[in-house]
Amino acid sequence: MAPTVKLAEYLFQRLVQLGIGSVHGVPGDFNLTLLDYVEPAGLNWIGNANELNAGYAADGYARIKGISALVTTFGVGELSAINAIAGAYAERAAVVHIVGTPPRSTQDGRVKVHHTFADGNFARFAEMAKHVTVAQASLRDPRSAPEQIDQILVQCLLHSRPVYIEVPVDLVRAPVLSGSLEKKLELPEAVWGSPQDDAISAVLEKVHSAKQPIILADGEIRAMGVVESLQELSKKTNWPTWSTGFAKGLLDETQKNFHGIYKGDWEEKNTRAFFEAADVVLCFGAHFSTTNSWGGTSLPDDKNTIYFSDTEIRIGKKTFRDVPARQVIPILLQRLDEGKIQRYEKYPELRQDQNVSVQDTNQDGPITQDKAWKVLATFMREGDIMMGETGTPGYGAREMRLPPNTRLFTPVTWLSIGYMLPAAQGAALALRDGGSVNLGHGKPGGRTILLIGDGSFQMTVQEIGTIIKHNLDVVIFLINNDGYTIERCIHGVKQAYNDVARWRYLESLSFFGAEKDAYTATAKTFGELGKVLADEKLSDGKGIRMVEVFMDKEDAPEGPLKDLMKAQLAKAKEA
Amino acid sequence: MAPTVKLAEYLFQRLVQLGIGSVHGVPGDFNLTLLDYVEPAGLNWIGNANELNAGYAADGYARIKGISALVTTFGVGELSAINAIAGAYAERAAVVHIVGTPPRSTQDGRVKVHHTFADGNFARFAEMAKHVTVAQASLRDPRSAPEQIDQILVQCLLHSRPVYIEVPVDLVRAPVLSGSLEKKLELPEAVWGSPQDDAISAVLEKVHSAKQPIILADGEIRAMGVVESLQELSKKTNWPTWSTGFAKGLLDETQKNFHGIYKGDWEEKNTRAFFEAADVVLCFGAHFSTTNSWGGTSLPDDKNTIYFSDTEIRIGKKTFRDVPARQVIPILLQRLDEGKIQRYEKYPELRQDQNVSVQDTNQDGPITQDKAWKVLATFMREGDIMMGETGTPGYGAREMRLPPNTRLFTPVTWLSIGYMLPAAQGAALALRDGGSVNLGHGKPGGRTILLIGDGSFQMTVQEIGTIIKHNLDVVIFLINNDGYTIERCIHGVKQAYNDVARWRYLESLSFFGAEKDAYTATAKTFGELGKVLADEKLSDGKGIRMVEVFMDKEDAPEGPLKDLMKAQLAKAKEA
Repeated sequence: MAPTVKLAEYLFQRLVQLGIGSVHGVPGDFNLTLLDYVEPAGLNWIGNANELNAGYAADGYARIKGISALVTTFGVGELSAINAIAGAYAERAAVVHIVGTPPRSTQDGRVKVHHTFADGNFARFAEMAKHVTVAQASLRDPRSAPEQIDQILVQCLLHSRPVYIEVPVDLVRAPVLSGSLEKKLELPEAVWGSPQDDAISAVLEKVHSAKQPIILADGEIRAMGVVESLQELSKKTNWPTWSTGFAKGLLDETQKNFHGIYKGDWEEKNTRAFFEAADVVLCFGAHFSTTNSWGGTSLPDDKNTIYFSDTEIRIGKKTFRDVPARQVIPILLQRLDEGKIQRYEKYPELRQDQNVSVQDTNQDGPITQDKAWKVLATFMREGDIMMGETGTPGYGAREMRLPPNTRLFTPVTWLSIGYMLPAAQGAALALRDGGSVNLGHGKPGGRTILLIGDGSFQMTVQEIGTIIKHNLDVVIFLINNDGYTIERCIHGVKQAYNDVARWRYLESLSFFGAEKDAYTATAKTFGELGKVLADEKLSDGKGIRMVEVFMDKEDAPEGPLKDLMKAQLAKAKEA
Repeated sequence: MAPTVKLAEYLFQRLVQLGIGSVHGVPGDFNLTLLDYVEPAGLNWIGNANELNAGYAADGYARIKGISALVTTFGVGELSAINAIAGAYAERAAVVHIVGTPPRSTQDGRVKVHHTFADGNFARFAEMAKHVTVAQASLRDPRSAPEQIDQILVQCLLHSRPVYIEVPVDLVRAPVLSGSLEKKLELPEAVWGSPQDDAISAVLEKVHSAKQPIILADGEIRAMGVVESLQELSKKTNWPTWSTGFAKGLLDETQKNFHGIYKGDWEEKNTRAFFEAADVVLCFGAHFSTTNSWGGTSLPDDKNTIYFSDTEIRIGKKTFRDVPARQVIPILLQRLDEGKIQRYEKYPELRQDQNVSVQDTNQDGPITQDKAWKVLATFMREGDIMMGETGTPGYGAREMRLPPNTRLFTPVTWLSIGYMLPAAQGAALALRDGGSVNLGHGKPGGRTILLIGDGSFQMTVQEIGTIIKHNLDVVIFLINNDGYTIERCIHGVKQAYNDVARWRYLESLSFFGAEKDAYTATAKTFGELGKVLADEKLSDGKGIRMVEVFMDKEDAPEGPLKDLMKAQLAKAKEA
């Protein structure tokens, strides 16, 4: 007899093999038996407060650990999480969404069971999931289930995008062949041939003849698995290197040829001129949403740019297919002739981000957005994850200069406010589970530091309870500026609809069950902020810690938001 | 020149005409200009903490006021709310979901804007909404917009199900013809003819010859608009009348021929025998999901049942189409020959729900589920809404005998835990906005009383902030039984995945911004519960009040849950 395991055992063993240490989700009657097999597989069950939050947390976990799992129940659970899954799709987080579905007999009998529209249709929610996942598997037969599971997990890794697996209750314990578990899943490689060699030659030709070459790293490099090799390329060439908001924190910012985020219309003049005069731009992992490209103003010139993606290389109008950057960069590193390339012996004058010490602020004055984020950056140290939620914190955080081996999360494309708090739970957990800050050259350990506005905080606040329950090391800076300031920048600066309910934010730790002496503090001036940042109970404490930082509701970080806010205030004054 | 208004003005004026007083939702950059027109239209903007909660609240509001509106932003906002919209579809709440979408130029130009997958596809989320709404309108042209709006609102009312309207930012202020606003929207009536007369005759023939006729009212009677006429029919015939969980509280429970929920396998023996011996069952608004039909055991015998729906009458195998109950019942009331029908002069002995006074409990003993709900029922008075969240409270609340002019919400089909707290916000607001407890024969005013377990409470807790912000009269009984007890009944009674984080629940009021003296109390024994219920600060206070009621985590209400729990405990003991 060939060896067998239960279907749930097969699934969870595969997840363990992929490096997943914890499973996010919420119990529901159609996934309870599935959950019986989580902890026996050596996985940690998180048990979030709701499914949307669980989805966000799984996304945060995946961005640190490479892949994550989310278990929800049919209908109500999966639909609650669907916005998080969509965000993971948009920004390429590899989330395995496992949905416990009604028994096959219930489905086949079209029983008017709860969590349906009582119309016998059990396919509706899977149809919806197709719009936001890269692959789907409906497990219906134990004979094909192992292969279906393997295939879908490979798709998840290959695209670094969410996948959707339906597991009917009555299949959880079904025996399936387990032989294939002996071999770990591996990412398939492109078969190399002359089309691939042609692509490399075309790239090298450009690279060797470039007078003013630069490197632009965008955030899909993480999903593409090239963070480390790209770091090496940047170091080896000494070419001026920029990132986008999405890529920020993936490359070593202490390297001299690293210049932070290229800011397009908001870039320093000489730096912009240099960037625009580049005759070759090596652009990796392009993800050119408007938010990630300063409204489209920071894009490189197409005619000088070589785009490297997870499947293609594009040079001008020519596209070379099936040449994944993951295989390309190591070859480039080998074949690059250091004697031939521009080495920038006389290095150009280019802007670099500078943090601001509290001493360089008006310490008795209010905490203003022009300096706040650069001051908060000084709180960081190696191994940390800094997370700037959509809103002023996310834009402000782009200005930080990061210590080595850290990571930054900022708004990229999905921009679903409420994401960052549960994502902080997921990221902090991923660190504890042995993840490293940027999958490439980071080191495990460190703190997860969350910068979040009051409006965002209200969206998903209950995940503080999960952070406490699992005793995760998270430091929260809650920006209390009385509502949705980012919306005020866009429209309705004085409108009441941009206000939020007024909570007593610092009471949250006690409410959600923290020890009564959990660290909380308030800062209304830069001086107060400085004292808080210097407090070892904050910087070196354990578990959750929280600081309420007050800012003016009509203040915004320098850059696009500040400009928008100025225009809104001028308009309001006129009216 | 024909008179015009701005498109947003047109839309919101229509909502006002339909009786909507408040609009739920969350601001987002694609709906901000739309929100400029909410308050000028005379509508109250709620501003929920997140979109799922806003959707649940809008559902609760619609079930009291008949219809409600929800405004979210494109992508992130609408997908966060989609589970609530699905619930409104499943249980027939008329929610108008208005989505602020990117300007037409952005959509047509396939701009890689935020809140998309940066792939130029702007139709994805509307495709998803089709699965959970009864009609959709994408406003793209000011010429057709008014008619599109009118048409979709009629669909919303006619089906009492959610609809979906896309409003691009750049159309908000577009002038549209306003002439049709002079006439209120009206529900179209069925054209009456001989097929309709035939249906009535067939019904009357059955009704006049019935020896043991009964009435079964299910919850779709609210959506069908027949609560009042059905009440009259029940009174006029004196026929024994039952409801389902879904219909509970719609009919007057003080009437002598009303016998609560018919419980199938869990019904009292003589009552069940009588129900099953009925030779004619008039069944209105059937909604026979398993949860609403005691696992299918409380269904009437098809061959003796006349089903009345919003569009059809079905007698045995014959279906008469296009005979809406809303038009049928008044005609039946006219043509019913009281001399011919069974009048039950000698009324049968049938079970009626009885509440339990605290005096009839062991006052020093723990609060047990066998009596807790019937004790809590004594707290109710005319005009109140009682809401039992999915979980033990929702099942327990089915046993209550309700005072006249009240309403009960219990788990029906969607069973999305977390629904009931935001729904309480919506229902309480609907009462304040002039709604009545059951649309038919209720009276405005009254308290909204929420019974909710700890697991459900954690899902959507932030809406307490919204209740406080709008100073709504809501009394919360938080059942602290240490996790998802309803899941323990189903599977994993001793499993840790059915635990939840331990919060300090009573601190919630202060955390979410209530006055520091807001009423809170704790009850661990029936005696303590009795004292709390008798406290005028609780019963006659204003705003939010909260009582933490402790129960054992392995206790469940009598009926299916108790039976399941017994089986689970026996299994756990064996293992």
